Amino acid sequence: MAQTATAYRDEAPIAALLEGQPLFRGMSPELRATFAQAAQLQSLNKGSVLFLQDDEAEWFYLIISGWVKLFTETMDGDEAVIDMVSNGHLIGDSAILEDSIHSFGAAAVEPVKALRLPSSLLKQAITDDHKTALAMLGALSRHRKRQSREIESLTLQNASQRIGCFLLRLCDPNGQMPLELTLPYDKSLIAARLGMKSETFSRALNKLRKETTLSIKGSMVTVSDLDELSVYVCSACSNEFPCKDLHG
Amino acid sequence: MAQTATAYRDEAPIAALLEGQPLFRGMSPELRATFAQAAQLQSLNKGSVLFLQDDEAEWFYLIISGWVKLFTETMDGDEAVIDMVSNGHLIGDSAILEDSIHSFGAAAVEPVKALRLPSSLLKQAITDDHKTALAMLGALSRHRKRQSREIESLTLQNASQRIGCFLLRLCDPNGQMPLELTLPYDKSLIAARLGMKSETFSRALNKLRKETTLSIKGSMVTVSDLDELSVYVCSACSNEFPCKDLHG
Repeated sequence: MAQTATAYRDEAPIAALLEGQPLFRGMSPELRATFAQAAQLQSLNKGSVLFLQDDEAEWFYLIISGWVKLFTETMDGDEAVIDMVSNGHLIGDSAILEDSIHSFGAAAVEPVKALRLPSSLLKQAITDDHKTALAMLGALSRHRKRQSREIESLTLQNASQRIGCFLLRLCDPNGQMPLELTLPYDKSLIAARLGMKSETFSRALNKLRKETTLSIKGSMVTVSDLDELSVYVCSACSNEFPCKDLHG
Repeated sequence: MAQTATAYRDEAPIAALLEGQPLFRGMSPELRATFAQAAQLQSLNKGSVLFLQDDEAEWFYLIISGWVKLFTETMDGDEAVIDMVSNGHLIGDSAILEDSIHSFGAAAVEPVKALRLPSSLLKQAITDDHKTALAMLGALSRHRKRQSREIESLTLQNASQRIGCFLLRLCDPNGQMPLELTLPYDKSLIAARLGMKSETFSRALNKLRKETTLSIKGSMVTVSDLDELSVYVCSACSNEFPCKDLHG
């Protein structure tokens, strides 16, 4: 695996990081300490591959900072970005339930800090410890809900609404108008994340600008009317803004 | 809930039905017997609603025969068919992990036989019994994998490939050519299941017929060259035919 990583150890902050994640928070302090001891803090360069689809699942990761792209590759060599995840998100954990094979790949799209943890330890903990099994059920249920949203959005929203939905998720529902947002990553990656070719993305973004008062300059977005944007986006969705469990 | 159901009891076949499903197979015989006693065998008419999105999850269901549509409804009143499930499939089970609220609705699209089981019993069993928690993890992992496939397909395959993929899943990889298939339900439902308007579906089906040797008459499909169909479909997917865990 082409990985440019620096592993270093400092257990106090690692324990704190684990405590911040629902999967580990449900464990006994002793079991959490076992994970903290086995964890490796890694600094990954842009482009580093954490694992590839069909790789044996030796490790799973807790992202601390930076964006990671989850992807699959078609027989034709095209790439599908199935998700983009960041801070606080677990990746590769569910492979232990799927014959310990990763069903997608993961790569850093910018400098990323992550905790690397042994999959075998998680598998053992789930088998031996009821609380961990319940916490894992919670984690999997959040994954599932996130995916259901995605399927609904892909089925019902048009391209402009999908871009609007992406932006809406960055908005603070209680924020002062106008809201100033920064795009979290490159427009080309946003297009890929939303399953669009870049031409489709540009056309759809122009349409969104015309149909709402939203404005975009470079990576800066100004939302001057949140109600207008949410009506435009959520009319083609079963959830209202602000929708729950967005980043589950 | 508008439900035209006949509930009747006969515990021996109910126990056998439960034993055939991975979630219940992992339980102790005593616990399984508790579920069998609480289960109600139901006959649902076409159109019967099992539950609606945002309903409190009082029951979950094991489908015995017939097709059930899982759906959400947008603020605008449009319906998204997020899945079609049948024989051996559990529905509504994961709501116990999501504040006991159903995140989608379910309705019979033809006469359906199903076992109705109390959600509270499943919630209790997962909390009390480690084996059941592990079996539930397996069930959720199968749901998740099925959804990942769906997202990949919606992102990468064109409409004709999506129809071809749907048909390919009905094909026996070891069957004698030509394969004769019967569509499992109405074309209009297949279109909805694949997230297409009926015009798009018709156009895409015509294109699929032109680009492969597949033929369709009414609900009868003839596949004379399985390799040709699988190359056409799977080139835009990360899985090869026959793909694993299709009906998980």
